Amino acid sequence: MTSSPETSLIRIGIVGYGNLGRGVEAAVAHNPDMRVAGIFTRRDPAQLRPLGAGVPVYGMEQLPAQQGQLDVLILCGGSKEDLPQQSPQLAAQFCLVDSFDTHARIPAHFAAVDAAAQAGNTTALISAGWDPGMFSLNRLMGEALLPNGATYTFWGKGLSQGHSDAIRRVPGVAAGVQYTIPVDEAMQQVRAGGRPDLSTREKHRRECFVVLQPGADAEAVRRTIVGMPHYFDQYDTSVQFISAEELAREHSAMPHGGFVIRSGNTSEGAQQVIEYGLKLDSNPEFTASVLVAYARAVHRLQQLGQHGCKTVFDVPPGLLSPRSAAELRADLL
Amino acid sequence: MTSSPETSLIRIGIVGYGNLGRGVEAAVAHNPDMRVAGIFTRRDPAQLRPLGAGVPVYGMEQLPAQQGQLDVLILCGGSKEDLPQQSPQLAAQFCLVDSFDTHARIPAHFAAVDAAAQAGNTTALISAGWDPGMFSLNRLMGEALLPNGATYTFWGKGLSQGHSDAIRRVPGVAAGVQYTIPVDEAMQQVRAGGRPDLSTREKHRRECFVVLQPGADAEAVRRTIVGMPHYFDQYDTSVQFISAEELAREHSAMPHGGFVIRSGNTSEGAQQVIEYGLKLDSNPEFTASVLVAYARAVHRLQQLGQHGCKTVFDVPPGLLSPRSAAELRADLL
Repeated sequence: MTSSPETSLIRIGIVGYGNLGRGVEAAVAHNPDMRVAGIFTRRDPAQLRPLGAGVPVYGMEQLPAQQGQLDVLILCGGSKEDLPQQSPQLAAQFCLVDSFDTHARIPAHFAAVDAAAQAGNTTALISAGWDPGMFSLNRLMGEALLPNGATYTFWGKGLSQGHSDAIRRVPGVAAGVQYTIPVDEAMQQVRAGGRPDLSTREKHRRECFVVLQPGADAEAVRRTIVGMPHYFDQYDTSVQFISAEELAREHSAMPHGGFVIRSGNTSEGAQQVIEYGLKLDSNPEFTASVLVAYARAVHRLQQLGQHGCKTVFDVPPGLLSPRSAAELRADLL
Repeated sequence: MTSSPETSLIRIGIVGYGNLGRGVEAAVAHNPDMRVAGIFTRRDPAQLRPLGAGVPVYGMEQLPAQQGQLDVLILCGGSKEDLPQQSPQLAAQFCLVDSFDTHARIPAHFAAVDAAAQAGNTTALISAGWDPGMFSLNRLMGEALLPNGATYTFWGKGLSQGHSDAIRRVPGVAAGVQYTIPVDEAMQQVRAGGRPDLSTREKHRRECFVVLQPGADAEAVRRTIVGMPHYFDQYDTSVQFISAEELAREHSAMPHGGFVIRSGNTSEGAQQVIEYGLKLDSNPEFTASVLVAYARAVHRLQQLGQHGCKTVFDVPPGLLSPRSAAELRADLL
């Protein structure tokens, strides 16, 4: 890794500055071949406090004028409201990476971004992160290497943002978090090469820590949570009531992780098990790190003239590293 | 996965028919988009018994005449004698995949194969398998995603062919096998996110099962084995003497596997751990499965006009799967 002169660094634009945006800023600092050239926000730019001194902050409306000043945008908004609009719109003008994670809508999102990127001669990579992202890669490779087999994805132990939000909407709840936990027995079966048919309940359980509003009926809250359709009713769910202080002290981190396990046979007697696991202290910071590595790959694909929408399935792994192909072969192969 | 008419199947040539070659033949049978079009051997073709009825067996000297009849050769010879000769020679005429695994000689092997493949307009992928191969990919991705971190590779529990051969050359030894075993304590430290400096001895231990020749001095054999420079002297090595019957009964399989663990920090407080693990009942059959998936990718790269020598670092993962890019995005992303 030779240090690049400032002028040849990959210029990253961060679009949205919540947990993920801050994670991207931190991750770029670990990558000597890139720099944050601007942060773009819908809030008042004067109110934002970037981690790095001297990082310019702009209002979102100033983004179009920055064409030519930014090599890759990293979109740090949500999959529900932000990315379905932003990614196709910005791909017309910029190379970009997003972490769109609504699995069922990926084909539609891909089509919209691809049309914009093809028309604009840009390169846009969607759905980077760990799931979708690293877990997807491992599902694909597991299936390709062991066609006669079965794939299992387990999530957790980790804090689920969506389920925590659902808890907080329950009447009588002041605050709360939810952890998704893989069922140990199921994990052991799968790791041992068994290929069990597992129900939703048999794969994961859910643990909730809830702060009640003054005067709320704890048992009524508990019943509402565990019976919530889709979110909790198909799982074994435990609800623990704690104080606001304990919640702040013990449950403000955002750990997550999980496992993709492929188990298959290459012949009757030979069972083969591939396991990929993540143990993350900070879910947004790890997702951000993945986005940053794929931003490098997007920049290179653009330079190679490979335009249009891409996913992690389309990227030669070597493009993720700042090191040369010859160095990678000598040191890591 | 729609079934392809016989004529559009990828035609695989297997070069060398030992454990790995047989594994390739078995793996191709699990992949409906390819077929074994020929097995090539230095032995008498009439003496070979392929697993599949009707698979043609040829002498090695008949290979050049098969140009145009084979889409990809899978080279199943050894890294010491066979591949350094065969891969560059055959790459002049054929697309191919090999499992060249002498890490220190990969750059030279790459250069020789690349020159031949560039001149011949063929596509050749070297050093596929699990290490080099899947483990290399995970070393690369771990480093790219978590630049501020450390990577650890542990091998085993598994039978090491090279170390078993070394044991069998000791005077007084009739037969024997050696297992490489990761040291549990080191694994736990690394998994917990520690980044210990581990000596060779602290990472792996070695377990030998030896059948003595009649009249051999057990203690002398033990001392020769455990003191063998490079192979055993830097490890804690145990030697157990067993009967030829027990060796045949308990130690004729070829299990292997191991772990690549990357542990890194994305910020001061946030530790992230990525772990990739393999638990293989049959080392040669799994290696063969990797070679077969990469043979598919080589065939597609060739069709895309991407000639020259490649490694696993250069292959977009989607090319490993028989499924279309749209299907993969919808089902696995």
